[in-house]
Formats: sequence, C-alpha cells, structure tokens
Amino acid sequence: MNKVITISREFGSGGREFARRLADKLNFAYYDSEIITELAKRTNLAEDYISSLNEQKPAPLLPITIGATFSPIVDVRWEHQNTIFAEQSSLLKELAAKSDCVIVGRCADYSLSEFNPLRIRLYAELDSRIERCKSRAADGEKLTDREIKQRINEVDKSRSKYYQFYTGKKWDDMLNYDICINTTGKDIKQLVEDFALTIK
Amino acid sequence: MNKVITISREFGSGGREFARRLADKLNFAYYDSEIITELAKRTNLAEDYISSLNEQKPAPLLPITIGATFSPIVDVRWEHQNTIFAEQSSLLKELAAKSDCVIVGRCADYSLSEFNPLRIRLYAELDSRIERCKSRAADGEKLTDREIKQRINEVDKSRSKYYQFYTGKKWDDMLNYDICINTTGKDIKQLVEDFALTIK
Repeated sequence: MNKVITISREFGSGGREFARRLADKLNFAYYDSEIITELAKRTNLAEDYISSLNEQKPAPLLPITIGATFSPIVDVRWEHQNTIFAEQSSLLKELAAKSDCVIVGRCADYSLSEFNPLRIRLYAELDSRIERCKSRAADGEKLTDREIKQRINEVDKSRSKYYQFYTGKKWDDMLNYDICINTTGKDIKQLVEDFALTIK
Repeated sequence: MNKVITISREFGSGGREFARRLADKLNFAYYDSEIITELAKRTNLAEDYISSLNEQKPAPLLPITIGATFSPIVDVRWEHQNTIFAEQSSLLKELAAKSDCVIVGRCADYSLSEFNPLRIRLYAELDSRIERCKSRAADGEKLTDREIKQRINEVDKSRSKYYQFYTGKKWDDMLNYDICINTTGKDIKQLVEDFALTIK
C-alpha cells in the first residue's frame, strides 16, 4: 500500500510549505490546486466557488442572520458543499492509490483512513503565526496585526467546524494525529531537514 | 553546546522506554535512578523519600483535610520538595553540560531551557495507556482496569500540578513542547526507529 502523509495545520503555522518540502524530500506526490481543478471538472462548479466552500464552516452552521436554515441560497451552497466533500474524498482515495503522497487539510486523515496515513499536525504560538502571515503576504496586502489575528481566528474556526461536521471529531484534539509539530519561530525548510521522518 | 532532549509524558504513554531507546539510538546519556541517588547524597534525604516527593503535587496544594497549611509535617515536606527541586535543577544543568543527554520528566524542559532542548511530549488514548500499564505490571501486581485508570488520573494530576507550580506553565499545553508524539497502540521500539529524529 502506498504511503500517505496528511497535514492538518493551524492557520499561519506553515502547513503548506511544510507539506511541499516534505513531499520534495521524500519524493512523494504533493497535490494542492490540482485537486480544485479536478473537482471543478467533476462537479461542473467553478474553481473559485469550490475554493470558497472548501474547509469552510458548513452552511447549516451559518448564523441565522445571514442565511437561516430555510434560505434557498444556503440550501444550494450546502448541497454543493456536500457534493464537493464526497467527490473530494473519492478523488483523494484515487490519488493515494496512485502513489505515495502528502495531502494538506481537506479532512484527508479521515477520508484516507484506510491507507493508515501518518497524520501530522502543525501548530504554533499566535505571535509566530501572525509573523508568518505577514512575511508571506502579497505586496500591497498590508493588514494590521489585529486584522491578521482576526483572520487567523476566523479561518481556524471555519476549518474546525468543517472538520467536526464531516468527521465527527475535534479538529484540535491531539489524539486525532500521530505527531504534532510546533513551528513557533522555526524556519520550515530547516524543520523539514531536522525532523527526518523515516516513513516505513 | 551539548544536545539535550527532554521527554514529558502522560502516565502509561511509554515515556521512559521511549527515552531510553532514543538515548541508545542517538548515543546520548540517559539518566534516571542515578538522579535520585545523587540527590540523596546532596540533600541527605533517603532515596525513597525523594522519589515520593518528586513530580508530586506540591505540599501547599494538598487538600486541607490531610494536612492543612499550618501542619508542621506539610511544612517539612514542602521545604524538602523545594530543596529537592532546586538541587535537581542544578544537577540537571551539570549533567547537560557534561554530555548530550535525554531527561524524562522533572520539569527538565524548564530547568534546562538555556540548553535550548528538543522538548518532546508523549501522549496516548486512555485505553492504550491502560494496556501499557498492564503489560509492564510486575508479576502479582494485578489491578483492575478501573484501578489503573484511577492511578493514571492521579499520577497525571500530580505531575500537572508539580509542573504548573514550578514552571508557571500548563503541563498539557502543546505549545510548551516542540514535538508531540501519539503512542496509542504503538510498539515503542518501532516508534523510535520510525521517527528517526535527526538532532542538529
């Protein structure tokens, strides 16, 4: 059976870079935007729209003031979100069956459980995550620390609700992961080199 | 500067075996009962008495029914516990200055912070910890699952209070560790081999 590594990550903890570098180092496949592109093909939905729903708080959990359970807009988004989740789970299984791979987010630890993945969780102190967000911000995108902190909280809350909804488990419960790595103040490149994970 | 690895562990998560095997593998020193023996020499206290105080809930936090703040017995134990903690911190620094080493518990991540240790935390699901406790129990020591569970809770509570008292930090906060490893159902020997930590 192929070796699968799943990466769960707090926003700003360097998860995507860690995953990409780890995949490079181990010579594993790393899928990211390709997943969205393929999902767009399979569902006939736009890539941007898929991205806007992925790892987002599920529609029925939205506050009543902006949707209400019986709103047709919420119903459609909700249906799409479920379709995307189901398609994504199938796709992830196909990818994992094809070769060794590293997958970030997407409840992959749950969807790929039959592959007995190495489930890694990245976390870091808030200040470190704010700094990381700043350092990777696009030119012209200048947010204050307070705005970044707010964004971090929002994203983590959404990912947490999404994970709990689809897996029935708590996103930040260490017991859902095999190894948790603190990236506070760490250079991700160095971290991947130092923690030479031998996957057997 | 020498390389130092500190191991914090939930009771029954295999911390001592992990530490010993990791030290063997990396050719680092591993200290355990030697620390108690040396502390006994330095404090003129009996080894058993030192063991009974180490990583225990600090005396002033004992429930009033079994000691009360003004009991002379509590005062003496409390004084001894502080003396032992201070002597132990000095001793750990001497050991770390002597060679690369692995230290289990003893708030070593805190006492040896100047050595910038790799702070590992081991944890596991309760059922797995109960099984581990059973498998390492001495012949004739037959506890029920319920009794083992109670023991696990007591020991973890004591370690937690001890850690919080002397370091001011929460024992089970992932942010106090660099890497947290889930030992649920794992063979510790295999785990140490698989997670080939390269310490640079």
